[in-house]
Amino acid sequence: MELTTVKDALEIILKSAEDFGIEEIDFLQSSGRILQENIVADRDFPPFNRVSMDGIAISSEAFNNGIRSFKIEGIQAAGSPQLSLKNTENCIEAMTGAVLPKNTDAVIQYELLTIENNSATVNLEAVKEFQNVHLKGLDRKQGDVLIPKDILISAAEISVFATVGKEKVKVAKQPKVMIVSTGNELVEVDQIPAEHQIRRSNVYALVSLLEKLQIKAETAHILDDKETLTSTIEGFLNEYDVLLFSGAVSKGKFDFIPEVLNNLGVQKLFHQVKQRPGKPFWFGKKQHKTVFAFPGNPVSTFVSCLKYFYPWYYKSVNLEMPKNEAILSEDFYFKPNLTYFLQVKLTQEEGKLYATPIAGKGSGDLANLVDADAFLELPDDSTNFTKGTIFPIIKFR
Amino acid sequence: MELTTVKDALEIILKSAEDFGIEEIDFLQSSGRILQENIVADRDFPPFNRVSMDGIAISSEAFNNGIRSFKIEGIQAAGSPQLSLKNTENCIEAMTGAVLPKNTDAVIQYELLTIENNSATVNLEAVKEFQNVHLKGLDRKQGDVLIPKDILISAAEISVFATVGKEKVKVAKQPKVMIVSTGNELVEVDQIPAEHQIRRSNVYALVSLLEKLQIKAETAHILDDKETLTSTIEGFLNEYDVLLFSGAVSKGKFDFIPEVLNNLGVQKLFHQVKQRPGKPFWFGKKQHKTVFAFPGNPVSTFVSCLKYFYPWYYKSVNLEMPKNEAILSEDFYFKPNLTYFLQVKLTQEEGKLYATPIAGKGSGDLANLVDADAFLELPDDSTNFTKGTIFPIIKFR
Repeated sequence: MELTTVKDALEIILKSAEDFGIEEIDFLQSSGRILQENIVADRDFPPFNRVSMDGIAISSEAFNNGIRSFKIEGIQAAGSPQLSLKNTENCIEAMTGAVLPKNTDAVIQYELLTIENNSATVNLEAVKEFQNVHLKGLDRKQGDVLIPKDILISAAEISVFATVGKEKVKVAKQPKVMIVSTGNELVEVDQIPAEHQIRRSNVYALVSLLEKLQIKAETAHILDDKETLTSTIEGFLNEYDVLLFSGAVSKGKFDFIPEVLNNLGVQKLFHQVKQRPGKPFWFGKKQHKTVFAFPGNPVSTFVSCLKYFYPWYYKSVNLEMPKNEAILSEDFYFKPNLTYFLQVKLTQEEGKLYATPIAGKGSGDLANLVDADAFLELPDDSTNFTKGTIFPIIKFR
Repeated sequence: MELTTVKDALEIILKSAEDFGIEEIDFLQSSGRILQENIVADRDFPPFNRVSMDGIAISSEAFNNGIRSFKIEGIQAAGSPQLSLKNTENCIEAMTGAVLPKNTDAVIQYELLTIENNSATVNLEAVKEFQNVHLKGLDRKQGDVLIPKDILISAAEISVFATVGKEKVKVAKQPKVMIVSTGNELVEVDQIPAEHQIRRSNVYALVSLLEKLQIKAETAHILDDKETLTSTIEGFLNEYDVLLFSGAVSKGKFDFIPEVLNNLGVQKLFHQVKQRPGKPFWFGKKQHKTVFAFPGNPVSTFVSCLKYFYPWYYKSVNLEMPKNEAILSEDFYFKPNLTYFLQVKLTQEEGKLYATPIAGKGSGDLANLVDADAFLELPDDSTNFTKGTIFPIIKFR
């Protein structure tokens, strides 16, 4: 069977992206979600001429007319309605964040004042109009787009939502995902495996990787029985947008997944990719349903989710995948004519990102990943990879 | 008043780190938490001589004695107890993940076989002992430490927890944090502010920044009234490990926080830092309680949380802060004798990380942060910062 190249596999997957629509959620729950509306200034920012230093507000004209001592008429606190300076040769004490009082146009900070007997004397040569005043609308005008749609929401955006009163924000709906393990050798985490059994772990790696995308996936386990697989998967195809499988896609006697999916009308878009680990990866569609059937090797499942499911999700929610590259820190040799996802440790030095290969103990050794931060993607057309060369990385920390 | 340098401020804060103890939580909830126990292999990995290709298991001795066609005695499936090859000149079909059958020591993959009449013929020159067999204990031995304590848990670790049956894991307890805004000018997000008012936003930025550390903080708002402040903060000091304030720490008439904290017995460790933004930052301790009183300017609060609270938290949970640096992509000028936290956009090119200054519209303009990814930390001893120079960065995306 002809293997699909990594590039072609990714292209096919990106073409299979789906739009899951929009939902409105509480702004404070929106971190990590994808904004689906422009966020607009509901008023000017600042919304008024805002005092930006604690001190006194005066009329600069009075200062320019030679006045240096200003009788204090009152205090303009932040959060109080605007006061009026009655006599423009006087002043009003004004606090950071307050509205600049009427008939004043400059603020002089306390550090430059002497206050005695309710009068402030200014120790300054010159006063500029609107000094220490943040002018209304200077930052943003009412109606300005503060945040464009299609961005990943973080703390900075949350804060802007609050500022403009967006209690509810429109975000991309998440796909409904079911993660399915197969394999009669698997027992639950809380069980003691018999000698020939191992515990179920891949589905939890996938749950956790999807959690980073704010997708709350569900999980199931199905035994290697064709009938059970067929009826259960049929139900899942109705109920979920995406099915992620781990295992049963290779050449084994009990690797029923490709056959079962085919029988259920899921169209195979490719099976077997020119990569290590993860060669037996199967991918297909049934109308708007998307099926990623990853190989059961723990590292295969892990890297395939990052390399294929992540970009599919990003494309589906209309978000650009961040580009990531690193510099190989030592020579590396890999002979097979396959794209190799090399486990690496990342280090930063002088603004440069270096990737150091982790001496793995076997492709199925999940514990290796504990020492790694990323996979370096080494292309299939070389065997000698030279120190100092730059390659794409797939980060998972 | 003498300003504290950024370096000294950070040093004082790190010395004030606290140990919040350990708790046991469900392994699947532990992503982003700090592991507080060594995770040990509960058995050898692989736990048995594991078949690593689908094919037939044979005795290599039989092959070396010239036998090339092997009668199939049965199938060794993954998850089935170990079978025994009865006649060592026969074979057993064996699936990936299965136990290697007794009396066999090599697996030949289907790709190299011709199967006819219940007999498999091998098209191979030589067979090595244990080829396509992942030997028991080769990856890890029972009792090996798979994950050392004091690391940040991610999907890779979650998967190892599952593998070794750690349903519950010991992690660092999180501090109980109360985030307090003050300022009579603030109204709630769902309210329409009067002309002299603005909406409360800093607390939500802080909630979101702490959420990234898996800390679920609570929030409160207190009006600028000394008595209310005193009684409310007194209660908070009893109930919480950490108080984060935003606002009321500068020179204004209603900036009561330093005085109130002092009256409540919170010892000031510094007030005013040689930095922009965030100069009026106040920090103090009362026994094991820690108080960060950030200035009310939105960007000040934001950067101070990242620059000071984050490292304090990392130190408290015994985790090393990742080192981050970037290359300034254009010349920049900043005159004041202060450390400047410059808002920058990060871009990656050829394994190098570049920081491009964002032309801000004012230090209080939170919407600027939407365009930035990080703050570049420019030291207080220079005014001209040259393109190509490397500086520390504080990332927030």
